[in-house]
Amino acid sequence: MKWGRGFTSDGSQITGVIAEDRFHPRAGLGSETSAGAPLSLSEVTLLAPVRPGKFIGLWNNYKAAAEKGGFDLPTHPLYFLKADTSLSGPGAEVAIPQSAGRVVFEGELGIVIGKTCKAIAPEDAGEAILGYTCVNDITSLDVLKADASFPQWTRAKSFDGFGTVGPVIETDIDWQALTVRTLVNGRERQSYPTSDMILTPAEIVSLLSRDMTLNPGDLIACGTSLGAGPIKPGMNVEVVIEGIGALSVTMTAPAGQD
Amino acid sequence: MKWGRGFTSDGSQITGVIAEDRFHPRAGLGSETSAGAPLSLSEVTLLAPVRPGKFIGLWNNYKAAAEKGGFDLPTHPLYFLKADTSLSGPGAEVAIPQSAGRVVFEGELGIVIGKTCKAIAPEDAGEAILGYTCVNDITSLDVLKADASFPQWTRAKSFDGFGTVGPVIETDIDWQALTVRTLVNGRERQSYPTSDMILTPAEIVSLLSRDMTLNPGDLIACGTSLGAGPIKPGMNVEVVIEGIGALSVTMTAPAGQD
Repeated sequence: MKWGRGFTSDGSQITGVIAEDRFHPRAGLGSETSAGAPLSLSEVTLLAPVRPGKFIGLWNNYKAAAEKGGFDLPTHPLYFLKADTSLSGPGAEVAIPQSAGRVVFEGELGIVIGKTCKAIAPEDAGEAILGYTCVNDITSLDVLKADASFPQWTRAKSFDGFGTVGPVIETDIDWQALTVRTLVNGRERQSYPTSDMILTPAEIVSLLSRDMTLNPGDLIACGTSLGAGPIKPGMNVEVVIEGIGALSVTMTAPAGQD
Repeated sequence: MKWGRGFTSDGSQITGVIAEDRFHPRAGLGSETSAGAPLSLSEVTLLAPVRPGKFIGLWNNYKAAAEKGGFDLPTHPLYFLKADTSLSGPGAEVAIPQSAGRVVFEGELGIVIGKTCKAIAPEDAGEAILGYTCVNDITSLDVLKADASFPQWTRAKSFDGFGTVGPVIETDIDWQALTVRTLVNGRERQSYPTSDMILTPAEIVSLLSRDMTLNPGDLIACGTSLGAGPIKPGMNVEVVIEGIGALSVTMTAPAGQD
């Protein structure tokens, strides 16, 4: 089942299930209660499928990337938070501020939480996961490393729009069978199997839930692997995960404010 | 003017202005619209005065602490985000999970945003600031430094309840004239003047708003200075800023989940 969020021609915001080119409004994410008549998908402009209470991003969670970087394999998720205002949706235009300097895309699998959970066991984590989505965890390399005394993970990843999410949340999918592909201007720049993950989604959710309560809609980007690369104004970037969809974003120049 | 948030004996949540031991409900934070008859303050259990869309914490923003630590003075805020679920209010009981190891209090001044702002000038930042509050930015030292390849700022500061805020937001106060005092079991452990800040509130808001859009209710903890120290289950910690109030939290042992 594919969950989406969007707005209609009259400007109202809806969440619901997408099936056979129709959008079936529901009372909320994961709800079985209808919230209106089905709409043609062409009448709905899709937004990020969820507005997460927390938008967590993992670092160093793929074996191939850890090996290339010379990093030990973590036994607990290594993570940062992206600001709420970094959220953008499918088809977004995202400005690269001048202060961001060199910026890279990072195509990732995202886990969406469906139930409140705290200190749950890995074998129970599946029930807490609503589904999976595509994430482009856009990152400023220059900001990340600008201060030798303090790596600026949050700032590097929290410029407005730098967390592109969507197009939908797929609930019926085998996370181990996926390939995350990222295309820049239509050319494939990144392609890696999710089976290469160090900590699995169930382990990630279980371990994070020992640190903090996870709530419905919370989003965990599972980290990227090899191939993340530079992007500049004018470029189109697509994160494609078969079974979920294609998440497109176009990078633009700043409006002159930065 | 003092803004607070709380719940009443019938369980409903209210936001409003506190004056002369009465709570005057308002339609929202900063709103001039009444939302009900005044209540005796004794009828209201105070919560954190705001639920921030983003809860930003600064590192290295006091000259005395920078000098002692041997850190360069930053020209841009160095910051992390605390999870939404780390928020706790005045009088909270906060468990120290076993996995947190050594934990310290950090008494801080908090800035509460009142207006949406993006890339504003320092001279306009005052209009974007609703007021100031007390923050106890509780931090696990062991988690922060557990992984040599990745300082875990977010995880160290995001255990449930590790961001205590309140008791109120004071709108009419001169931030430069304040002293942040922290008492552990009634004994003063920290006392420093806010005038020792490296980046001022106006500079912080202006510079952060160049990174990302700030929205009403966003909270920025200005960083701590010398004197932050260890806390253990059973201890009471109070952050006191004259003109704002005293923010009390009691640390407890975990419920056995961690």
